[in-house]
Amino acid sequence: MTILPVEGLPELAEGDDVGALIAGRAELEDGDVLVVAQKAVSKVEGRVVRLADVAPSERARELAADHDPRQLEVILREAAEVVRTRPPLVIAETRHGFVCASAGVDASNAPAPETVVLLPLDPDASAARLRDRLLELTGRTVGVVVSDTFGRAFRSGITGVAIGCAGITPLLDYRGRRDRVGYELHATVVAVADEIAGAAELVMGKTDAIPAVIVRGLRVAGDGTAQELVMARERDLFR
Amino acid sequence: MTILPVEGLPELAEGDDVGALIAGRAELEDGDVLVVAQKAVSKVEGRVVRLADVAPSERARELAADHDPRQLEVILREAAEVVRTRPPLVIAETRHGFVCASAGVDASNAPAPETVVLLPLDPDASAARLRDRLLELTGRTVGVVVSDTFGRAFRSGITGVAIGCAGITPLLDYRGRRDRVGYELHATVVAVADEIAGAAELVMGKTDAIPAVIVRGLRVAGDGTAQELVMARERDLFR
Repeated sequence: MTILPVEGLPELAEGDDVGALIAGRAELEDGDVLVVAQKAVSKVEGRVVRLADVAPSERARELAADHDPRQLEVILREAAEVVRTRPPLVIAETRHGFVCASAGVDASNAPAPETVVLLPLDPDASAARLRDRLLELTGRTVGVVVSDTFGRAFRSGITGVAIGCAGITPLLDYRGRRDRVGYELHATVVAVADEIAGAAELVMGKTDAIPAVIVRGLRVAGDGTAQELVMARERDLFR
Repeated sequence: MTILPVEGLPELAEGDDVGALIAGRAELEDGDVLVVAQKAVSKVEGRVVRLADVAPSERARELAADHDPRQLEVILREAAEVVRTRPPLVIAETRHGFVCASAGVDASNAPAPETVVLLPLDPDASAARLRDRLLELTGRTVGVVVSDTFGRAFRSGITGVAIGCAGITPLLDYRGRRDRVGYELHATVVAVADEIAGAAELVMGKTDAIPAVIVRGLRVAGDGTAQELVMARERDLFR
């Protein structure tokens, strides 16, 4: 497995043809998985809010502590459900079902000061559109993962996760296969899309401004979506 | 970044010199990170229990549902604290502080039927010993990660995590650095050791019997341990 950065991408803005920008800078091969940072996808899709346009609610002021209550207001608007709070930290479930800090709202790497970036409305659709565009431009059939970084319960630090995908199987199911001594593997469903996003993050870095990388050498072609990575509420022992 | 499997390793048993077995099959370079599967480390360290030697307690019988109560007994003995249960599923905190299914006890890929494999007693020490042995045998200074796969709250599927490490910085701290528009990055501590373990898992697979891979092309040298990845109880909003 090799991870190749897509180098020389410009700062992205609403309406940019990110597929064309990538196709012009990368030699894609069939079976590659292209991982694109959520922030890049969101900017291209115009998912940016100017804080000057936001009037904070009373609840946003309460949760803000010493932070900007307008940013908390945006977070509350993006949240389907607030899961935990420790002002100004809010962990929320997004409309997509992802549980993450700030409902995915982030001020870092935003296009301008006093703006925040929201998650794409439908990251699976974003991934599918980019996949189609890359096929059109290059003739290559690739998988696409839209990646973000989330914190986790019980463990320190954030890691890459897949919030959208197209053309891959996000969960590889080993159940029913047998190991070398013939023991059947139970409960072994691997979230390869998240592992791919994490591997990509190692190459993207956080400040190095590499919003797209190519993961080569995996066999994960399929037709799943990142919605499969959302654990059903009734199965989750931590809800 | 490239991930290279260490091919041709034999089935491992207690007392094997895993450093020599790897050094004989891989061309290590300075700065490489060698990722070794927990199961391999545990077998070499003799962390295997024969179920025939285990007498299940009443609590183990209760938690076992239709599973083997002797395996549940081993899990309870390995657990510092039981965090959640849904028989026969037990999520427990291990003595190392890791929160995971079955306190890390696993029957798959065990050395023989009717045996289960426990986590290493001190996976950071296991990683450090292997690092020292590889330096001795090859003259190369590498990082070592002992990896396992854990489930997560809120998300389906398991992913690779680091339970031991040596010679690397498990958490990369971007706080205080600035993004391209000058916004200071807050709360951006990346658990690179877990991302490395996840990337390695993509190449190891679950049944392919590749217990060791080399991750090449990262700059993560340091002197941290996997204990840094354990979130302090008082900081964890999900405890």
